[in-house]
Amino acid sequence: MAIAVSPLAADLPVLPPLAGVRLAAAAAGIRYRGRTDLVLAELAEGTTVAGVFTSSKCPGAPVDWCRALLPAGQARAVVVNAGNANVFTGRAGAQAAELTAAAAGGLVDCPPAQVFLASTGVIGEQLPHEKITAALPALHAALDGDAWAAAARGIMTTDTFPKAATRTATIGGTAVRITGIAKGSGMIAPDMATMLCFVFTDARIPASVLQSLLGRGVASSFNCTTVDSDTSTSDTVLLFATGQARHADVPADGGPMLDGFATALDDLLLDLALQVVRDGEGAQKLIRIDVAGAVSAASAKRVAMSVANSPLVKTAVAGEDANWGRIVMAVGKAGEPADRDRIGVAVGGVWMARDGAVVPGYDEAPVVSHMKGRAVDIAVDLGLGDGRATVWTCDLTHAYIDINGSYRS
Amino acid sequence: MAIAVSPLAADLPVLPPLAGVRLAAAAAGIRYRGRTDLVLAELAEGTTVAGVFTSSKCPGAPVDWCRALLPAGQARAVVVNAGNANVFTGRAGAQAAELTAAAAGGLVDCPPAQVFLASTGVIGEQLPHEKITAALPALHAALDGDAWAAAARGIMTTDTFPKAATRTATIGGTAVRITGIAKGSGMIAPDMATMLCFVFTDARIPASVLQSLLGRGVASSFNCTTVDSDTSTSDTVLLFATGQARHADVPADGGPMLDGFATALDDLLLDLALQVVRDGEGAQKLIRIDVAGAVSAASAKRVAMSVANSPLVKTAVAGEDANWGRIVMAVGKAGEPADRDRIGVAVGGVWMARDGAVVPGYDEAPVVSHMKGRAVDIAVDLGLGDGRATVWTCDLTHAYIDINGSYRS
Repeated sequence: MAIAVSPLAADLPVLPPLAGVRLAAAAAGIRYRGRTDLVLAELAEGTTVAGVFTSSKCPGAPVDWCRALLPAGQARAVVVNAGNANVFTGRAGAQAAELTAAAAGGLVDCPPAQVFLASTGVIGEQLPHEKITAALPALHAALDGDAWAAAARGIMTTDTFPKAATRTATIGGTAVRITGIAKGSGMIAPDMATMLCFVFTDARIPASVLQSLLGRGVASSFNCTTVDSDTSTSDTVLLFATGQARHADVPADGGPMLDGFATALDDLLLDLALQVVRDGEGAQKLIRIDVAGAVSAASAKRVAMSVANSPLVKTAVAGEDANWGRIVMAVGKAGEPADRDRIGVAVGGVWMARDGAVVPGYDEAPVVSHMKGRAVDIAVDLGLGDGRATVWTCDLTHAYIDINGSYRS
Repeated sequence: MAIAVSPLAADLPVLPPLAGVRLAAAAAGIRYRGRTDLVLAELAEGTTVAGVFTSSKCPGAPVDWCRALLPAGQARAVVVNAGNANVFTGRAGAQAAELTAAAAGGLVDCPPAQVFLASTGVIGEQLPHEKITAALPALHAALDGDAWAAAARGIMTTDTFPKAATRTATIGGTAVRITGIAKGSGMIAPDMATMLCFVFTDARIPASVLQSLLGRGVASSFNCTTVDSDTSTSDTVLLFATGQARHADVPADGGPMLDGFATALDDLLLDLALQVVRDGEGAQKLIRIDVAGAVSAASAKRVAMSVANSPLVKTAVAGEDANWGRIVMAVGKAGEPADRDRIGVAVGGVWMARDGAVVPGYDEAPVVSHMKGRAVDIAVDLGLGDGRATVWTCDLTHAYIDINGSYRS
């Protein structure tokens, strides 16, 4: 079944080389025919790394592998394959990860424990690691600082467009660059990170500082998105700092010197996270949900996610129906403090309900017009406190069912 | 848009009169054209009542009304309308409830505080209570002990078939009957009760005992079902005991005398709950999920609900794809104790995965054949403890989106 490119697709930006990173993509025939499915990135010596992973209790072997490597904070390579997630594959899955890391380490001349791995695709089938190890030497020979677009394409599964973003910042007056690629379309309800995302910078930042920056950035980007409420077993976001930029030393606790870098990183992570939502399986509309007036930010987030994950809200948006009663329903089921008689609901900036009842004679025309667009904004005011949150999702359409009723076939 | 009758529809059983209950249905024109939408049931003097309601923080005015009446434990009438839920309607909604109860109370000669109310349909529009009060006198004049089928039809909204069940039991050697009707199709994720369900018995049981029986029965029936994870603002299950049967007195604490009655009640509630799931919006298959080996029953229930609410599991079942990797995903995202390397998954009684990996060479033929049927059984063994739970849901199909993308239009 051919799936058209998402109408919400973002254009791939120009992605200049980033000092200390070389990449290549190849078609290893892991599952797909006639497309690339294996990506290798080589990182300069001294590269530090941070990562966040799925909160699933059934994580894949590559997630286990990366988690074990992370405390050392050093990385020299990443190997990513699409088409097979190497999840629920038992001891053989762990061995497949070890053998892949060993083969890549031999090529880039580093210990296997500095090779990060990620796999995405079908769950429960053995990863054909021999196809990966057979493809790695040619991939290594093809490494190129200009292969970002090929890498972004090589990690796709049901994605309809490649996802990448780049930003610049300064550290102590020296320019640095941050570039990231991501994949993801379904099974998107990140609770730590989601899907696969690889971010690279030429900045020189200690691993512990990098980890704290990444954790904060993911909390307000990937962890504020959902496509279908289903949390992947493979969610991985890795941030690599090659240290090739010649800026002053970053202190062990980070500090204000990294303010500009942190802002650029947060912005890049949100850009990538929204690209994933824009490619949500079957998505026709990008939905932003702002909740204010909650008793806390955490409470606002749970209410916003309850709205974002409601099939009835998502199908109403697909049908271009400003059915704010369903938004109220989703607020009510969240289990968070709410006083029905203080709730307000707005769509496209027009408050349709206030203080627990419909706003008499509100102007429906701008709401109807807003619902017909590609971006739908929902706001909820609980009227209780100062807690706020913003999350993003997409609508639920026939194409989601087409894609997921036949994924394996 | 015409929606065909669910392929999982149950036949309406023969529903004999039940001493102390007379019913009638009428077309009051609340929202629908050319069908009944208002039901009145009159109950004998001395009828006791129990109820469970939605856990939504945004309950409808009729839910508030019933909750306030319940402590007195006495009922003489029920008025139910379809087409408008009287939810998020502010002070006017509460007044509409009061006026409806007063009008019905005048007809059956009881205080308004013995008239129970339920409304189901669109949220956020004022209930046209004057249409209800105008229709009530003729409805009262038409009351009949044989109008069960008409009542079951009169409370439907997006339901494609009427839902009813009847059972008999004995109390102290005397035969009693229990008959219930229910409606529900979408916005089904009961957390107390779900949708509307009215159960009547001629037994003579104190309200406090009735409440405890109902609470227990709902916990293992309605509260173990989900269609779309969306909890309604109007969920209501009411159980009325008219006391017309001439059995010995039931002690204040119930006790073993009610064992047979409780079993029959539990069975009836589960029958009605499964009828609701069978009429889940767009449902083509009824899915049963058994989870065993959890650390507790509550944990097993949360894991089972995580599987039942997963759009990826539900679309896989719709596509007749025994994609057990998605079941593992849903177990993993539940946040409950689970050890990936001890999990087993079976579909249609065939164990496809054991101890965290696929069962080599399992026979896929019976699984494929099972997936093509109308009833799909999923079993998960967590291998940790003795906690078990069973929940029911339906698949997610195009028709769900058709129905919910155009509900208000």
